[in-house]
Amino acid sequence: MRFARFCPLAGGPPRWGILEGEQLVELEGDLFAGYAATPRLHARSEVRLLCPASPSKVVALGTNFRDHASEMAKPLPAEPKIFLKAPSALIGPGEPIRLPAVPGNIEHEAELAVVLGRRLCDASPEAARAAVLGYSCFNDVTARALQRQDGVFARAKGFDSFAPMGPWIETEAIPEELTLECWVNGALRQRGDMGQAIFPVPEALAFISRVMTLLPGDVVAMGTPAGVGPLSPGDSVEVRIEGVGRLENPVVRREG
Amino acid sequence: MRFARFCPLAGGPPRWGILEGEQLVELEGDLFAGYAATPRLHARSEVRLLCPASPSKVVALGTNFRDHASEMAKPLPAEPKIFLKAPSALIGPGEPIRLPAVPGNIEHEAELAVVLGRRLCDASPEAARAAVLGYSCFNDVTARALQRQDGVFARAKGFDSFAPMGPWIETEAIPEELTLECWVNGALRQRGDMGQAIFPVPEALAFISRVMTLLPGDVVAMGTPAGVGPLSPGDSVEVRIEGVGRLENPVVRREG
Repeated sequence: MRFARFCPLAGGPPRWGILEGEQLVELEGDLFAGYAATPRLHARSEVRLLCPASPSKVVALGTNFRDHASEMAKPLPAEPKIFLKAPSALIGPGEPIRLPAVPGNIEHEAELAVVLGRRLCDASPEAARAAVLGYSCFNDVTARALQRQDGVFARAKGFDSFAPMGPWIETEAIPEELTLECWVNGALRQRGDMGQAIFPVPEALAFISRVMTLLPGDVVAMGTPAGVGPLSPGDSVEVRIEGVGRLENPVVRREG
Repeated sequence: MRFARFCPLAGGPPRWGILEGEQLVELEGDLFAGYAATPRLHARSEVRLLCPASPSKVVALGTNFRDHASEMAKPLPAEPKIFLKAPSALIGPGEPIRLPAVPGNIEHEAELAVVLGRRLCDASPEAARAAVLGYSCFNDVTARALQRQDGVFARAKGFDSFAPMGPWIETEAIPEELTLECWVNGALRQRGDMGQAIFPVPEALAFISRVMTLLPGDVVAMGTPAGVGPLSPGDSVEVRIEGVGRLENPVVRREG
């Protein structure tokens, strides 16, 4: 099943729906606490898809692929290395990544996003797997020089628009079987198998839940494979995960 | 004026109120989008005060006092060094700080919390000052060895209960004139004047707003002066800011 968050092009507030072919069945209620299908149907061509999450927090894993650890000259972690992205950085499919005027490259990092369906605290990997609602595509956009300069990542990875996510939440995927790709202007830049992640989804979620309680709707981004590289105004960047979806975002200069 | 978030001891959902002496005037509506006083009055002795914020994010400043930079052997920053605390770490007055079984000390860091009243993006210091709703006491509880080990702070500062805040939001304070203290078991451990902060409130907020949009209700913790030190089960730790309030939390071992 695919849950999408959307606005009708004709206007109106954001809402959730279930994607069925080229149609969205609008939902009412709370996606996490109990929802029901309504009789309201929307053609996909008549809606704008939004970021399929409004989480209380976005947790992300650093250095979760061996090849990316190599290219960043970082040691392999003995336990998951977690950081937080500002929820204000989230944008949806088609929304522009806005590059601020900062020193150094601003780079793409294609990742798998996990959306929690249930509260998770001090959990086992098995309980963590059962708490997952589904999966989406994520781009952990990073100002590389600021990341190195600051040591902490809040600024380098927290600018508005630095967390594209979408196009929807796919509930049926098996994360270990997913392949992640990043395409820039139609050229393949990153490719990685989630089966090669140092910490798989259940272990990563369990680890995080022993630190901080994960709430329904929270997002965990699972780390990026090798091939990160710079983005420039005018680029189009796409995160593709077969069986999940494609997330495309144009790149522009941030004004002001 | 003092805004408090509270639950009646008799039960019921969290709500906002205005503190007038020993009484709370219950509010209805949205504290940030428009509220009104109700005729419902509550004696302070009949309510439990809650963390006076449910922010979309908690931003904090590292190394914002010269004496703390010295004790941590860190250089003075040329610009604010920001990090994020997990909102799931927030607790209110009187709630226990729960110490997980991790290597090294878990330490108190008394700080001034700023609560935003308005959205703030790409702002000047003047606009930032005008967007402040008020001030509260904050304890940036930190697992010191994990902070050094991880480099990033999300885990070390993100455990559940590692962000005590309260007891209310004081709207009338002038931040540059506030003095911050931390008391553990009745002994003074930290003392600092906000006038000595490297980055004052308006400059810090303006800087953050040029990275990430701050939303109404968001919290910014302004950094800690020298004197940070370990907490042990059985301790009582108090952050005092004259003219704002006193935030007391007991310290216990985290179970499980």
